[in-house]
Amino acid sequence: MTAFNRSSLEELLKKRFFYAPSFQVYGGVAGFYDYGPPGCALQSNIIDLWRKHFVLEEEMLEMDGAIITLADVLKTSGHVDKFTDWMVKDVKTGDIFRADHLVENVIETRLDGDKQARLTTENDATSQKDKKKKKGTIQAIDNYTGTELGEIIRNHKIKSPETGSDLTEPVEFNLMFESSIGPTGHLKGYLRPETAQGQFLNFKKFLEFNNDKMPFASASIGRSFRNEISPRSGLLRVREFTMAEIEHYVDPNNKKHVRFDEIKDVKLSLLPRYIQNEGKTVPVELAIGEAVEKKIVDNETLGYFLARTHLFLTMLGIKPDKLRFRQHMPNEMAHYACDCWDAEIQSSYGWIECVGCADRSAYDLTVHTNRTKEKLIVRESLAEPLVYDKTVLEINKKIFGPKLRQNAKIVEEYLTNLNEEQLEALKKELEDGNGKTMVSCADGNQYEISSDFLTIQKQTITEHVREYIPNVIEPSFGIGRILYSLIEHVYWTREGDEQRAVLSFPPRVAPFKCLLVPLSNNPAFSKLIRDLSSKLRKLHISIKVDDSSNSIGRRYSRNDELGTPFAITIDFQSVNDGTVTLRERDSTKQIREKIDTILQVLKDLVDEDVTWEEVLSKYPTFVQQELD
Amino acid sequence: MTAFNRSSLEELLKKRFFYAPSFQVYGGVAGFYDYGPPGCALQSNIIDLWRKHFVLEEEMLEMDGAIITLADVLKTSGHVDKFTDWMVKDVKTGDIFRADHLVENVIETRLDGDKQARLTTENDATSQKDKKKKKGTIQAIDNYTGTELGEIIRNHKIKSPETGSDLTEPVEFNLMFESSIGPTGHLKGYLRPETAQGQFLNFKKFLEFNNDKMPFASASIGRSFRNEISPRSGLLRVREFTMAEIEHYVDPNNKKHVRFDEIKDVKLSLLPRYIQNEGKTVPVELAIGEAVEKKIVDNETLGYFLARTHLFLTMLGIKPDKLRFRQHMPNEMAHYACDCWDAEIQSSYGWIECVGCADRSAYDLTVHTNRTKEKLIVRESLAEPLVYDKTVLEINKKIFGPKLRQNAKIVEEYLTNLNEEQLEALKKELEDGNGKTMVSCADGNQYEISSDFLTIQKQTITEHVREYIPNVIEPSFGIGRILYSLIEHVYWTREGDEQRAVLSFPPRVAPFKCLLVPLSNNPAFSKLIRDLSSKLRKLHISIKVDDSSNSIGRRYSRNDELGTPFAITIDFQSVNDGTVTLRERDSTKQIREKIDTILQVLKDLVDEDVTWEEVLSKYPTFVQQELD
Repeated sequence: MTAFNRSSLEELLKKRFFYAPSFQVYGGVAGFYDYGPPGCALQSNIIDLWRKHFVLEEEMLEMDGAIITLADVLKTSGHVDKFTDWMVKDVKTGDIFRADHLVENVIETRLDGDKQARLTTENDATSQKDKKKKKGTIQAIDNYTGTELGEIIRNHKIKSPETGSDLTEPVEFNLMFESSIGPTGHLKGYLRPETAQGQFLNFKKFLEFNNDKMPFASASIGRSFRNEISPRSGLLRVREFTMAEIEHYVDPNNKKHVRFDEIKDVKLSLLPRYIQNEGKTVPVELAIGEAVEKKIVDNETLGYFLARTHLFLTMLGIKPDKLRFRQHMPNEMAHYACDCWDAEIQSSYGWIECVGCADRSAYDLTVHTNRTKEKLIVRESLAEPLVYDKTVLEINKKIFGPKLRQNAKIVEEYLTNLNEEQLEALKKELEDGNGKTMVSCADGNQYEISSDFLTIQKQTITEHVREYIPNVIEPSFGIGRILYSLIEHVYWTREGDEQRAVLSFPPRVAPFKCLLVPLSNNPAFSKLIRDLSSKLRKLHISIKVDDSSNSIGRRYSRNDELGTPFAITIDFQSVNDGTVTLRERDSTKQIREKIDTILQVLKDLVDEDVTWEEVLSKYPTFVQQELD
Repeated sequence: MTAFNRSSLEELLKKRFFYAPSFQVYGGVAGFYDYGPPGCALQSNIIDLWRKHFVLEEEMLEMDGAIITLADVLKTSGHVDKFTDWMVKDVKTGDIFRADHLVENVIETRLDGDKQARLTTENDATSQKDKKKKKGTIQAIDNYTGTELGEIIRNHKIKSPETGSDLTEPVEFNLMFESSIGPTGHLKGYLRPETAQGQFLNFKKFLEFNNDKMPFASASIGRSFRNEISPRSGLLRVREFTMAEIEHYVDPNNKKHVRFDEIKDVKLSLLPRYIQNEGKTVPVELAIGEAVEKKIVDNETLGYFLARTHLFLTMLGIKPDKLRFRQHMPNEMAHYACDCWDAEIQSSYGWIECVGCADRSAYDLTVHTNRTKEKLIVRESLAEPLVYDKTVLEINKKIFGPKLRQNAKIVEEYLTNLNEEQLEALKKELEDGNGKTMVSCADGNQYEISSDFLTIQKQTITEHVREYIPNVIEPSFGIGRILYSLIEHVYWTREGDEQRAVLSFPPRVAPFKCLLVPLSNNPAFSKLIRDLSSKLRKLHISIKVDDSSNSIGRRYSRNDELGTPFAITIDFQSVNDGTVTLRERDSTKQIREKIDTILQVLKDLVDEDVTWEEVLSKYPTFVQQELD
């Protein structure tokens, strides 16, 4: 096989209209792509398999929610404040650059392609914090703060690439597309940056739909948006993309998974923090069962989804040796995550995050509960009531109010926020101070409190219901990134002929399953083509008829480029004896049988119930020199 | 069967989480809905069947394009200027109302519910144009212009409904959501109001993908947006919705359809203009073949899609007697359409447009070609070259330029835009005027031209290639509207028990195919449930396990409300002899057979290869009094 050549592949993808820049006749806009017929079918198949592999397999509660999201929701979730990138402006032209990319590019260029080293040789002048980062060489630079980036830009005298002008200090740019809902112009909305928030907001409805049983998962497939400062890398960094997200809700005290046993022997290529901390990038191969046992992966549920994700991606055709699971370093996690593993797929763009498996803990459900007062919680009847002693505070409002007057509220807030330990300490202070002591409240002032109006004592509490906010384990799939990586993995050219490219999609994933080619456009073939088309459609096998005047070989090649795994050819013999040939894309080998046999074989092949090798061992290979 | 009760149905849809207002815990926003698990699965199934019925059946070129659309594109398509509704403001409070809805509501109220009559009794004071409209009693009021609406508001003294204040004159409100792309804030985009434009822009790529063969269709399924002034009627008028659109490109000189014969006998309920012009609403039942022959429906391609749409909708479960195809009156068509038939479905909200079949003529491809200079055209090699005489103009620029100097451009533009007839007339004028005459140009001035610098004469033209802009026939499906109408059509309550509601979705459409219920939560059943679940998943049959402690009857009822067509029940006998019962939703009848038999029967039922009646005629009915 010849070395991978990205520009040849890009040429193919363009020629066969897998995808193309949106609004291209209007000049296009960076970060927007339209999927043409093969790209669209490929995407549909990936989504369909995802739905079967995850949603149907585990009876997940799939929803389809609004894309436009009320600004309040995303304010609460933290996206309004924290879903940002740093940008710098050319002080003269006003040209805008994404600060981390600019720094990265400049430094990479200066290091003359020594990518692994990145900052290791030049950043003596940078801060202590930067130095610490040196250790993780695969650490992405997009985790630097604005101050850090500004410092690097100054220290390395980085200028505007085109004009050489100075750059402004980095400023934050929110990555959400904003719009306004309704005719007043006063109701603000954003295009969702993830489908997750829509799922969280429906937690109570899901739980009820699930007969109040825990754990369970919701799921959603749909478009999300990210107003990138400077989109690049084709489908890998775009402004509009399709994601498939699972939110699996678990008891924080029990992150076991009932089906963990089924996948515990699946071997994964893991790159945990401790390896990255050593500055290394060689992953460790481990069965997920062992990884969880050794606490490399925190819990069974997270481990379960890593393994299931591995199975899903390799089923699509992702090469296992180009797939690894990398744990996030603490400083690179999203604002909501408490642990995160990325499924990274290697392509000509490097190792790219295609699936993020984050433990979002109780973050989202907590912030929405606090903001809306709708309790997004689980109530669990306890088989045996929980009885325990607890230090509690009681305030005698009749005395407390008049005594503290306008300060009553702030003091009360201070007191009610004390935990048991603090209450015990306060009790002791009051005893030591003869029933009086001073407390420092949120307004910075000190107030005197007295045992006249408050009692601190142990009480016996009996609970029949346990209330908790579930933790959320979130596997989040970037469909476009997976789709592009997959195309690179299945792309090759035939021995000795770089012009003859093939995309070896597995049958279930391939955009079109079967090419239907008459030997020529002789009218003798048209009835057979019509009948066969109709039979194939009844079997729900998606076909492409190519009755153009091109040579058979040329028509096969075109469909090799589309990744169509099989081709049925109709010739004069077909008209006479009702046999047709079935050609397989990768081997270019053929068999020749009666139509009904071929249809059954094809159906089994497309469903991946048999392999082509099995077919060849059962039916004689048909040799017809002139065709291929 | 009891009379339809919308609020009972709405209660059910809410309780079973078919859909719910988005961001409900934040108070919700009108016009946005989230589909919960059954709604989402129902929508997926409708889309899946749509793809099979249209895209796969005719090898349509499906694409998936950007939602955010460059403002320029929608300026050219006419949406920036014409995709608007009229709104009026309360002059005191600033409250905003959609003018046509307000007028409609007020007048309907005043007419005391005589909806059919609408404006016929009260509009003597309105304009001549209004009077003409009286004829079409089912004519929607939303086709009135702003001036007309203003006139009606004044003449009928319509005030702000809550406050009784005066209303402003109607002003136009653009229905597109606007946003800004990238960090500069200068690149404007809109959320697409339809998927069609994205398809048109890719016409050249589609044609090439199709080996330059005409006719063909592109298709797209996805979210579109419409910033309604005041959304209402649940899923029927929303701000965000999923559509499935086909753009079928045809030669304007030949709108025949190659597969028309297959559907020519399909009977449709048609409401053409001539019936509406008579003020009637009783449709005519006609085979589509006859309708096209009689020119009631303009051409075979349009007729083909009307019939295919009828087949699709009735396959989903839409009742044929609640489905009609209504032709648009000339004044109610969208700005791009030259003919249009709506598939209207009757529900408790009246007859609602759910599919629009428009002949958009060459409108869109022409305006984009003119704007971008990218020719979105078809080039057809002519078997025999076309030879004809044509009057042509030649300008001798060497004399023309110096003579007309700064006016040369405007005069040239005038001259080159003349058609053959006008050129002949000009030639005559020049002859009559001794080689000189005056022409009136676009700037309003007259210029003298002379035969010194222009020649007008017949030339023989030979064309080997015919160039044309295709016409577009567009069937456009509102998935949410179809989904809601379908739910109303399949909803009923059991004889004598209004509490026991059923949604009789056909098996292929039903959100979940099979309920799996153990008789009780006795651990003896769990292995069987696990095995059966796994077997059903392998068959890609979506299931719901209900092992809650509710009675079997209660669990059946809950799934009747979800529209789950079948249920497998596991009892103690199952553990002993490996038989299970299969219950059908509508009849509540059951059979009892070995598991493998039941699985095969179920698979055939779900694929709609056999009917329940056929199953009952083959297997004995199982009677178990205590369950249902």
